Amino acid sequence: MKLMEDRIRKDGIVEDGDVLKVGMFLNQQIDVNFISQLAEEFYRLYKDEGVTKILTIEASGIGLACLCAVPFGVPVVFAKKSKSNNMSGDLYASHVHSFTHGTDHMAVIPCTMLKKEDRVLLIDDFLARGQALHGLIDLCEQAGATIVGAGVFVEKTYQLGGDEIRARGVRVESLAKISAMSVADGITFV
Amino acid sequence: MKLMEDRIRKDGIVEDGDVLKVGMFLNQQIDVNFISQLAEEFYRLYKDEGVTKILTIEASGIGLACLCAVPFGVPVVFAKKSKSNNMSGDLYASHVHSFTHGTDHMAVIPCTMLKKEDRVLLIDDFLARGQALHGLIDLCEQAGATIVGAGVFVEKTYQLGGDEIRARGVRVESLAKISAMSVADGITFV
Repeated sequence: MKLMEDRIRKDGIVEDGDVLKVGMFLNQQIDVNFISQLAEEFYRLYKDEGVTKILTIEASGIGLACLCAVPFGVPVVFAKKSKSNNMSGDLYASHVHSFTHGTDHMAVIPCTMLKKEDRVLLIDDFLARGQALHGLIDLCEQAGATIVGAGVFVEKTYQLGGDEIRARGVRVESLAKISAMSVADGITFV
Repeated sequence: MKLMEDRIRKDGIVEDGDVLKVGMFLNQQIDVNFISQLAEEFYRLYKDEGVTKILTIEASGIGLACLCAVPFGVPVVFAKKSKSNNMSGDLYASHVHSFTHGTDHMAVIPCTMLKKEDRVLLIDDFLARGQALHGLIDLCEQAGATIVGAGVFVEKTYQLGGDEIRARGVRVESLAKISAMSVADGITFV
């Protein structure tokens, strides 16, 4: 999507260690007008799928998911990150490894927030190795909910997480697909 | 505000230890249509203040702040919580103690995300002892930005944080004000 690619070219900063900083518009600072335009694109792609809920994971996904939920008119649920495997109460939980941060945590939601009748759209800012999305898919499967697909703002296609998710049979729509990235050569889009 | 009080009466759960659970519509699950209505109320209250930015703190404030930003058409910045006092780079940082969780952390934003020209509306879900808001106010003062006020979804007036913030000269608008709360007697609104 040209709108997204142009903005990444303008405001994205490539750093060593395969890092793309988009904190000025997508992350810690959220350009609400811009994201609302992107939300309309996800709505165009998924509007006929009977979405009843949008699921994301804290923290940077929450704001994006809420703005994406506006045209759909559905609630957002976010999975909390917990260090503990020792969960109490009626919770769905899935293990997530972060290659970015080198950490492990559980993604957790109360069972009351996801039902088998739900038709869930997954939203996340980045898709690289796909660990967060795998975790969210697991949570939906535990609930018996239907996954209509995933909406991702930036996919790094060279890290293959997207291919794996698609191979699981989950539709993935990414607004920008990066096929190569380096400090020296900048960003190449698919 | 009756809309908010009614929803708390309907879906809020009072638990021991002065806990009000609103996770089903305000927190981990966010009723986007409902919050968008509340956002219009904050817009009515602050629309003449020339707001240029909405500031909140992760994680539960982020989704609410983004939805509140829609009618204003301004960006959201959220302060990240960091355990470390040892910050690198050009950051504004303020110490925040959480009475709810019994923890201490730093609230941190990059200096690039808050300018002295900014007119900032602070948004948060709860105002009890006011520690989070004090931290956000400190960040604005470090940046030299103007605070036009705070928009809070639920204020516990008996914990006096709101009085302290107002005594600092900051306008605080709360959609629901709780003057007393217990498992036995339920919730009393101001």
